[in-house]
Amino acid sequence: MDLRVILLGTSAGVPSKFRGMPALAIFYLDEVLLFDCGEGTQVQLMNANVSFMRINKIFITHFHGDHIYGLPGLLSTMAFNQREDPIYIYGPRGLDKVLKAIWGLGYFPRSFPIHYRELDEEEVDFGHYTIASRAVAHTVPGLAYSFSEKPYRRFDEDRAGALGVPKSKIRKDLTEGKSVIVKGKRITPDMVLGELISGRKVVYSGDTRPSEAVTELAKNCDLLVHDSTFASDMREECYQYGHSTARDAAVIAKKAGAKKLVLTHISSRYGKAIELETEAKDVFGNAEVGRDFSSYPIKKAR
Amino acid sequence: MDLRVILLGTSAGVPSKFRGMPALAIFYLDEVLLFDCGEGTQVQLMNANVSFMRINKIFITHFHGDHIYGLPGLLSTMAFNQREDPIYIYGPRGLDKVLKAIWGLGYFPRSFPIHYRELDEEEVDFGHYTIASRAVAHTVPGLAYSFSEKPYRRFDEDRAGALGVPKSKIRKDLTEGKSVIVKGKRITPDMVLGELISGRKVVYSGDTRPSEAVTELAKNCDLLVHDSTFASDMREECYQYGHSTARDAAVIAKKAGAKKLVLTHISSRYGKAIELETEAKDVFGNAEVGRDFSSYPIKKAR
Repeated sequence: MDLRVILLGTSAGVPSKFRGMPALAIFYLDEVLLFDCGEGTQVQLMNANVSFMRINKIFITHFHGDHIYGLPGLLSTMAFNQREDPIYIYGPRGLDKVLKAIWGLGYFPRSFPIHYRELDEEEVDFGHYTIASRAVAHTVPGLAYSFSEKPYRRFDEDRAGALGVPKSKIRKDLTEGKSVIVKGKRITPDMVLGELISGRKVVYSGDTRPSEAVTELAKNCDLLVHDSTFASDMREECYQYGHSTARDAAVIAKKAGAKKLVLTHISSRYGKAIELETEAKDVFGNAEVGRDFSSYPIKKAR
Repeated sequence: MDLRVILLGTSAGVPSKFRGMPALAIFYLDEVLLFDCGEGTQVQLMNANVSFMRINKIFITHFHGDHIYGLPGLLSTMAFNQREDPIYIYGPRGLDKVLKAIWGLGYFPRSFPIHYRELDEEEVDFGHYTIASRAVAHTVPGLAYSFSEKPYRRFDEDRAGALGVPKSKIRKDLTEGKSVIVKGKRITPDMVLGELISGRKVVYSGDTRPSEAVTELAKNCDLLVHDSTFASDMREECYQYGHSTARDAAVIAKKAGAKKLVLTHISSRYGKAIELETEAKDVFGNAEVGRDFSSYPIKKAR
């Protein structure tokens, strides 16, 4: 049940020599979920050694160019590499129009099915996890997303072995809560499953001013990746453009009871952005500035 | 009269870790002319320390994604940086449709005038130079371009000084072929201008199979930057996808009497592509494989 987040681009608005355009990947089981896809994301994915073929879902926060201009190239390269598996794209209302514009960009290749769905504030069930979307406070309509692993019970190999449960589909049935018969004896899930373990949660704000909805969405999350475009001395400009300061992000992480905060969407005026990290840490200790290719494994709950 | 060519991306179809998507810049006087604009061109321009504000003309060879997906981001960043100067975009028929798709890509910003013109096979006069376009032999309609400096005569400072010609607008008049009166004496252009010097010429093929039209266009050029997607052992696949081999490019450079050949649009299957260079040099000695950020100053004719 490996869960890992990789930042693929941590810049804001325009790229810099050091930060790529906004994009973030969540690795879970055998899937890669991509959030936003700024220009150059395909090269960032190559440099992070992520197989394009594992990406099966893309979530877009909003339709400012810095979050979407990498989509045409990424989808084209997938076609170039003869992908056949479908891909699913999610985003706020307006996604349909944006994708149709992409199909109109010259000779756009279509080798595999591209499914898409416009989201409101909702929760989509993907089996082992759900993705919830909440409206943010930006200059254009946008969504923040949470990835929430469902609570689960560990399969106790030792107890199952002692009870003679074979390594077969039967174990899957038990995990899913069904009782089974083994050598004439009824085995119930409670006999082989451990305590209920709460799932892990990752939240990505996209571009937003400080928002109650995002704070609520981030409640008790393991990792919050939050807009932190400027330091507090530029608060006015920051809010005017629909963004948060590093301090705002830290206040939200604290209120939400997040375990860790990573600052992203860093204005190109900053280099290593130590000042943003310092400002955030004053409020919320477990904060850091995201860098391209920073990787955050999320440990299983005990 | 500085003239210089910089390769900004030398890959084909898909980017690699080592080669960016197709783009090439010609620096002439105070202008930068951009040819093609693959994804990531704006970052390549930053890394080459090219001011976006100096770019005033963009020429697109054809509308395959690898040659145009950098346009939305480049134009957006120009707007982000509050550009006010107009930009002129040229390309084959279909440019209108592509640009309208770009305007439809989310919230595309428009802070400055974007003029554009679809070209056939023609020659456009830009004052000190002309740009000629010729249809290529690719899988979709496309154009090769030549940049041709107009022949000119050097202003002879010594002779002008001896004749008492002041350093004023009068010198410009003489350069442009007008006679002037200095202290009651008539000075004709011939009295202060040197021999007629032939202009320099750079040709960029874009994507094409070996083409008579490109060979003709490249006649006596100083620099030919030519499609060289594969080595000759992949000739069949190469032609199927509408490209040239390194050997083809060399044969064309030789036939055209080009002074120098640079191979570009290198398939991601090659690394340093030494095999392409070797193959080309067998036919045409002054050939090399282009690398991202390679710079080619074009010397003035004697």
